[in-house]
Amino acid sequence: MKRDIVIIGGGPAGMITAITAKANHPDKSIVFIRKEERTLTPCGIPYIFSTLGTVEKDMVPDDPFLNKGLEIIIDEALDVNTKEKKIVLASKGELEYEKLVFATGSEPIRPKWLTGSDLENVFVIKKDHKYLQNVKDILKEQKKIAVIGAGFIGVEMSDELATDGKEVFLIEKLPYILGRAFDEDFTKDMQKTLSNKGINILTGSGVKELKGNGKVEKVILENGKEVEVDSVILSMGYAPQVSVAKKAGILITSTGGIWVDEYMRTSVEDVFAVGDCTQRINFITRRPTPTMLASTATSEARVAGSNLYNIQNLKAFNGTIAIFSTKVDGIVIGSAGATESEAKASDFEVITGDFEGMDRHPGTIPGAGKQKVKLVVAKRSGIIIGGQISGGESASELVNVLGFIIQNRMRVDEVYTSQIGTHPLTTSAPTKYPLIKAAEAAMMKNI
Amino acid sequence: MKRDIVIIGGGPAGMITAITAKANHPDKSIVFIRKEERTLTPCGIPYIFSTLGTVEKDMVPDDPFLNKGLEIIIDEALDVNTKEKKIVLASKGELEYEKLVFATGSEPIRPKWLTGSDLENVFVIKKDHKYLQNVKDILKEQKKIAVIGAGFIGVEMSDELATDGKEVFLIEKLPYILGRAFDEDFTKDMQKTLSNKGINILTGSGVKELKGNGKVEKVILENGKEVEVDSVILSMGYAPQVSVAKKAGILITSTGGIWVDEYMRTSVEDVFAVGDCTQRINFITRRPTPTMLASTATSEARVAGSNLYNIQNLKAFNGTIAIFSTKVDGIVIGSAGATESEAKASDFEVITGDFEGMDRHPGTIPGAGKQKVKLVVAKRSGIIIGGQISGGESASELVNVLGFIIQNRMRVDEVYTSQIGTHPLTTSAPTKYPLIKAAEAAMMKNI
Repeated sequence: MKRDIVIIGGGPAGMITAITAKANHPDKSIVFIRKEERTLTPCGIPYIFSTLGTVEKDMVPDDPFLNKGLEIIIDEALDVNTKEKKIVLASKGELEYEKLVFATGSEPIRPKWLTGSDLENVFVIKKDHKYLQNVKDILKEQKKIAVIGAGFIGVEMSDELATDGKEVFLIEKLPYILGRAFDEDFTKDMQKTLSNKGINILTGSGVKELKGNGKVEKVILENGKEVEVDSVILSMGYAPQVSVAKKAGILITSTGGIWVDEYMRTSVEDVFAVGDCTQRINFITRRPTPTMLASTATSEARVAGSNLYNIQNLKAFNGTIAIFSTKVDGIVIGSAGATESEAKASDFEVITGDFEGMDRHPGTIPGAGKQKVKLVVAKRSGIIIGGQISGGESASELVNVLGFIIQNRMRVDEVYTSQIGTHPLTTSAPTKYPLIKAAEAAMMKNI
Repeated sequence: MKRDIVIIGGGPAGMITAITAKANHPDKSIVFIRKEERTLTPCGIPYIFSTLGTVEKDMVPDDPFLNKGLEIIIDEALDVNTKEKKIVLASKGELEYEKLVFATGSEPIRPKWLTGSDLENVFVIKKDHKYLQNVKDILKEQKKIAVIGAGFIGVEMSDELATDGKEVFLIEKLPYILGRAFDEDFTKDMQKTLSNKGINILTGSGVKELKGNGKVEKVILENGKEVEVDSVILSMGYAPQVSVAKKAGILITSTGGIWVDEYMRTSVEDVFAVGDCTQRINFITRRPTPTMLASTATSEARVAGSNLYNIQNLKAFNGTIAIFSTKVDGIVIGSAGATESEAKASDFEVITGDFEGMDRHPGTIPGAGKQKVKLVVAKRSGIIIGGQISGGESASELVNVLGFIIQNRMRVDEVYTSQIGTHPLTTSAPTKYPLIKAAEAAMMKNI
């Protein structure tokens, strides 16, 4: 069996590589291989526990792919021979390719150093609908749940489980939640919102051990505290899945991802890699970054999918800008680019620009709420290298405005005189557009 | 009496010039002169009729300006002597200046050709709280109201009056509503929403005459139809207020605005102009444009306010990009840059990229609604020169994402591989981000 383009992996990176490849190379036969019978929307996973209500509602249908003339094989790629351009499948078949794309994703980390992490009722957030259905069924009967790791997934899981009536303990080693994406001052409101929902937030609390007799019963913290639990959810990060690529002799970086160049080409001819299985470089700090976002993966997939046979689409931005947002009880917080603490830790000399206003205008308009922006600015050049936003629903797109500002390497003085659109019912006043006012605040410090 | 910086006008253009000047020149004495005792938020005016409920809720307080050390004079500038650098005030005082800024704004057009436009109960939307309070008081007792002109103000007024229980006739000469900002295909949904609210929309209907005995009683259309009314609201555009500038010998363009250069300097030394009283050039078409938006005015005000004594802040974008949005019954539509019809009328060869998706993901998430994007793209270069968006609340900031794309002269292929941030509860899926998918659609046409 031979296909022109073979993609290993059926998550967002694989799907968008396939769709992009088809659009750009309509005459090529394109297949993607995935292990799972059905695929989930990965960012929707926390919401199956309450907001969506069922795993079923988070499924991605296959029809749109099949209708586009793409082929899906439910199988596992065990080995790749890059010289003969052949893939060995678990079903014992072989598959030849012209161009190969690794989109093998990442797997949740269940740390070996954590004694008890293999106890019953210790779960991870695996992108597998059967596994998740099982977790959901078990949690249904339980009350006390510890979530270890307060990144986005930990925070969203805690929020959903609390909404579902559980007693939740959110445990985080760092001194504050969402520490990779936000500076501490920016997470306080969100932390308060979660506390008000009844979530027990234990920050600055490293986990020492999980204890139990078969089933997990206690989380033992480094500070000696013990938390009694029915279940534990580990949200301690994800590791790139590179075993097949590694066996095939494809270069893996020291931080564990598949090495790729700017066009998502690996070290081996005609082999590409996209998504969480690759090693990304941070757009700002120029250092390897563990950012794993579906949105980033789809950008890489568009680069790969359109450039498999020749480089026809130049990559717009060299490096990963982590842009994300989340929402808890009507409050959205978002971040793009470097945080102040990240920038300083990477030896950037920065100033910040802060502004707090209202997300509708005048402030007397029904539904108006607070909106807050913090910009992180490279001191000498005035280039905006990051920012954080909190506000209502629209903050999720406001963070994309910021994303385009960062990607275009705009300076504060350029943003200061940029043109924006506003409306009483949906945005800040034009006189107080938060990104512009925060740019102004940074400029005034720099005078 | 002498002040270093004198600003004539107290609307958004004047206010932001004053604030910016103070931030950049803290040691200068700065005053703004305005006729009105108190100022309104101009874009909030339609909403005093129902959503806000009172004129009072739309007022801008003076305290924040006074607290910043700015001075406000309630008076009228009658004459300016630019040689002696003196202003004659209606109160008979004189005011000397070092730098003068015209921010005299615009006045609603009450067309002379329209017989009956001076009848009683024929109103315009004047930015004057006493006038508006009077309109509101009179309308309270009335039932049938015709709104003539279906631009943003006409549409928003109709919506608010309908919400308030009035029988509304929205009359527009063009074949569809919001014709300056949108292509026809894009206004259909909004038009349907307004119709469903009970608003009688009469498009393609030029007005011939207003009739009545003292008070207005009928609107006579060019097609012979008659509409019986208690009141008429004329929303037929605004004219720059340039009488004082003209008398002072400052250059006025053939289209009636004060001529300004890129730094908002007029033809006379030390005299600047900002906002609706100036003649703007369209960023895309490079032609004079009648766009009058508070958001555009604040951008100009920041340019002027920071460059009064020397050019320290380069203007970021040369020309006006009309960016706006409005909301009716939960549906937001927005536009930035050139429409397809405007581009073609200005001799641009364009293609479009269209996409329709959902504004949350997966589509099963509660509150998910349709989201639609149309991009207008210069054919050979692939540069995005305009776009239209409809969707939920977040569309108002999505149009700002588009605004930054246009201002940075980004091409469709750059947007195609740009990075964005998404979240299930607040945005489209990363695989279907509407601006990226519309860029893709345009690229595929161009291959």
